[in-house]
Amino acid sequence: MKSIEKKILEEGRVLDNEILKVDSFLNHQIDPKVINEFAKEVANQFRKEGINKVLTIETSGIAIAYAVAEALGNIPLVFAKKTKSKIVDDDVFKADVKSFTRGTVSPVSVSKKYLSKEDKILLVDDFLAEGCSALGLLNICSQAGAEVKGLAIVIEKIFQGGRELLENKGVKVFAGASIKAFVNNSPVF
Amino acid sequence: MKSIEKKILEEGRVLDNEILKVDSFLNHQIDPKVINEFAKEVANQFRKEGINKVLTIETSGIAIAYAVAEALGNIPLVFAKKTKSKIVDDDVFKADVKSFTRGTVSPVSVSKKYLSKEDKILLVDDFLAEGCSALGLLNICSQAGAEVKGLAIVIEKIFQGGRELLENKGVKVFAGASIKAFVNNSPVF
Repeated sequence: MKSIEKKILEEGRVLDNEILKVDSFLNHQIDPKVINEFAKEVANQFRKEGINKVLTIETSGIAIAYAVAEALGNIPLVFAKKTKSKIVDDDVFKADVKSFTRGTVSPVSVSKKYLSKEDKILLVDDFLAEGCSALGLLNICSQAGAEVKGLAIVIEKIFQGGRELLENKGVKVFAGASIKAFVNNSPVF
Repeated sequence: MKSIEKKILEEGRVLDNEILKVDSFLNHQIDPKVINEFAKEVANQFRKEGINKVLTIETSGIAIAYAVAEALGNIPLVFAKKTKSKIVDDDVFKADVKSFTRGTVSPVSVSKKYLSKEDKILLVDDFLAEGCSALGLLNICSQAGAEVKGLAIVIEKIFQGGRELLENKGVKVFAGASIKAFVNNSPVF
């Protein structure tokens, strides 16, 4: 069993066979031992891809992206910012992202200074469900002309279709834990 | 000259002799080389304090807190969450934090699960200005009965009084860069 899967079984809580809470090591308290082990696996998967930058979305992605950026040789990371305003800003790339847990749509943006057609990007996030965050980041990379080399995810809920959607777009997906289903509020890997 | 100060001179931008933008290595794009060097200095300063947990506030503190938590021996970190609602929640410690740059007051919270009287805490953040964020985190630690061993800050604007306020409360403050003033939109260290 993968170490992230073991940690989920030990400390995760499933609500209504749908939402997985992993606040003890990923989304509120963060355990660097767990995240660094994941980051090393990610680096092994993507080391030959010439990645020069990691891209994530605030908030929960940041610590994971930091660990992955370190494991890939202390390359820079950029986090897309959630923006409240709908004001047009020529200095940023912007995309709408649907939140699976909240049911809302939020614009996120990245300054044009920190993403360009020279970049080979690894996307990093905590959860992959329907793939909405990843699609937003793909959209932003596409606007910048940056090449997306893959997506590294700590936990995917594979039954919600995010992986299939992204693989159909040619994106290589790596997950630390792949949940096939929730049964009686327990994850099945 | 300290490495953070050198980086600020090279890449920072000062607006209206008041706001320092360091988006290229700290607040939007993050440079792990710079942050890890800072984290090592922090660990050297606080290694003997028996710190078992790092506490920060989302968003900009998270990557820095992660690096510091690693440097202190892969101890856990917790980030206080910005909460929109004023609803009373018995499961969290909550405090109000004033934002210097935005002029707003926001409640932040930490789950009671992840902070207790057994904890010896190092507070970590990106900026120290008037000390509002740090006061909020001190308040939360006080509610939990946790002992605050110090505050590590990447950049302090010493003329805004945050250090003095905190040192008067007995908090040891370490900063990667200490700005005495802005003159003609340039920082003076």
